Amino acid sequence: MRILVTNDDGIYAEGLGVLTREISELAECVVVAPETEQSAVGHAITLYRPIMIREVRKKGEFLGYAVRGTPADCVKIGVKELVGKPIDMVVSGINVGANVGINVLYSGTVSAATEASILNIPAVAVSLDTRDSSADFGPAARFVKKLIPLVMNSPFLKRITLNVNVPALREEDFKGVAVTRQGAARLVEEFDRRFDPRGNAYYWLAGETLLPETEGLESDACALRRGFITITPIKFDLTRHSAVKGVRAALGDLVKG
Amino acid sequence: MRILVTNDDGIYAEGLGVLTREISELAECVVVAPETEQSAVGHAITLYRPIMIREVRKKGEFLGYAVRGTPADCVKIGVKELVGKPIDMVVSGINVGANVGINVLYSGTVSAATEASILNIPAVAVSLDTRDSSADFGPAARFVKKLIPLVMNSPFLKRITLNVNVPALREEDFKGVAVTRQGAARLVEEFDRRFDPRGNAYYWLAGETLLPETEGLESDACALRRGFITITPIKFDLTRHSAVKGVRAALGDLVKG
Repeated sequence: MRILVTNDDGIYAEGLGVLTREISELAECVVVAPETEQSAVGHAITLYRPIMIREVRKKGEFLGYAVRGTPADCVKIGVKELVGKPIDMVVSGINVGANVGINVLYSGTVSAATEASILNIPAVAVSLDTRDSSADFGPAARFVKKLIPLVMNSPFLKRITLNVNVPALREEDFKGVAVTRQGAARLVEEFDRRFDPRGNAYYWLAGETLLPETEGLESDACALRRGFITITPIKFDLTRHSAVKGVRAALGDLVKG
Repeated sequence: MRILVTNDDGIYAEGLGVLTREISELAECVVVAPETEQSAVGHAITLYRPIMIREVRKKGEFLGYAVRGTPADCVKIGVKELVGKPIDMVVSGINVGANVGINVLYSGTVSAATEASILNIPAVAVSLDTRDSSADFGPAARFVKKLIPLVMNSPFLKRITLNVNVPALREEDFKGVAVTRQGAARLVEEFDRRFDPRGNAYYWLAGETLLPETEGLESDACALRRGFITITPIKFDLTRHSAVKGVRAALGDLVKG
């Protein structure tokens, strides 16, 4: 088995290193990751400039390919150009910070997994619910090592992209594993306005995640907050299928022509 | 009525200008758009650098706010900071190039509309099926002017983000208007490898859109190709709801704990 490992925190991130070492016991791992932090890039791809690639070595040993691009670029170019052999799975992470609720949409970590599924490759995105980039990624990495064979041995699961979030707890403190949906948690944003030395205004995006009180364990954010590892199946069809008929009716004559 | 107009081709793009002039007959328009082309940025937001804003004037007249950021940034910062009055609707476009099939996922144009819907603001994304940035945006702009009152007068449609694609045809040649779903059209990508003057390899993303032959008019790409204006309702929940139970069953003991 050959796994392409990527992330959005960049090729030197601790979470990627811990994950790769752990799952190397299961499969040949090839790291293809952004050269620098790419958090919140969403499903960006690089069209209007060339993509530079650099082979990263540490003490002479090949560590992986650093891509001057986004996580989605890494998956595309890794699969099509760099690895040169079939990829059986893509694992993206371990991200610093949960990717739940509306954040899933902004997440480079998740978009790498989505890109893999567009290419018909089984994929898992993994995030740790912490803001500490030197947190202990071990429990999350060991969970992924348990999850991978389950996915690869199930013809059903191989076709489903999984967004996994792990609480920053010791293994014995996990409450369990919950299969969830993308909940309604959303960012409540504020912009912090400042002035540069020449008097020009600029803005920093600030704010925090708001967790609705009413959601239950079926919501990724709520289950995670309560100490569960959450697994949400995701897809890349943005159609609001339930509204198609209603829109047709509401547009009336415009659609009838 | 006050409409925030944005795009991903940048504040100086012809499509944004034509759209704004057309719908100014309906509403007060405030342009908040990226300073430079932001195509294929997906739902990226800017967290790790400040966002610079510049007021753009032409012959002394205020044209809009140029944002050194992504389309999603424009909507957030426009609504929260720049406009200072309530926004009734966000219109994003007119994009050069269709946003159908898998391209919806990569589209900055669509992500601006999605961002508006996250903020509970009615939103329409509009794209013209052409590669010619000096194409005639008039027919698409006039269609949007017809669509806006229908959306704003329908409590149902106001809650549904619409992704509109318009064929690059004269109005009399439109086949009609179709309410569609995101089809299976996808990019078939290749990377074009080149070498810089110092012998380092770099890659350009190349390739073209592949349209499955088997899809019918319910698919955005197919209906568009056949000359229909397409309207696809979209959402920002990426959960693959149909798979939640199956994943739970397939993971077996892992979930049961």
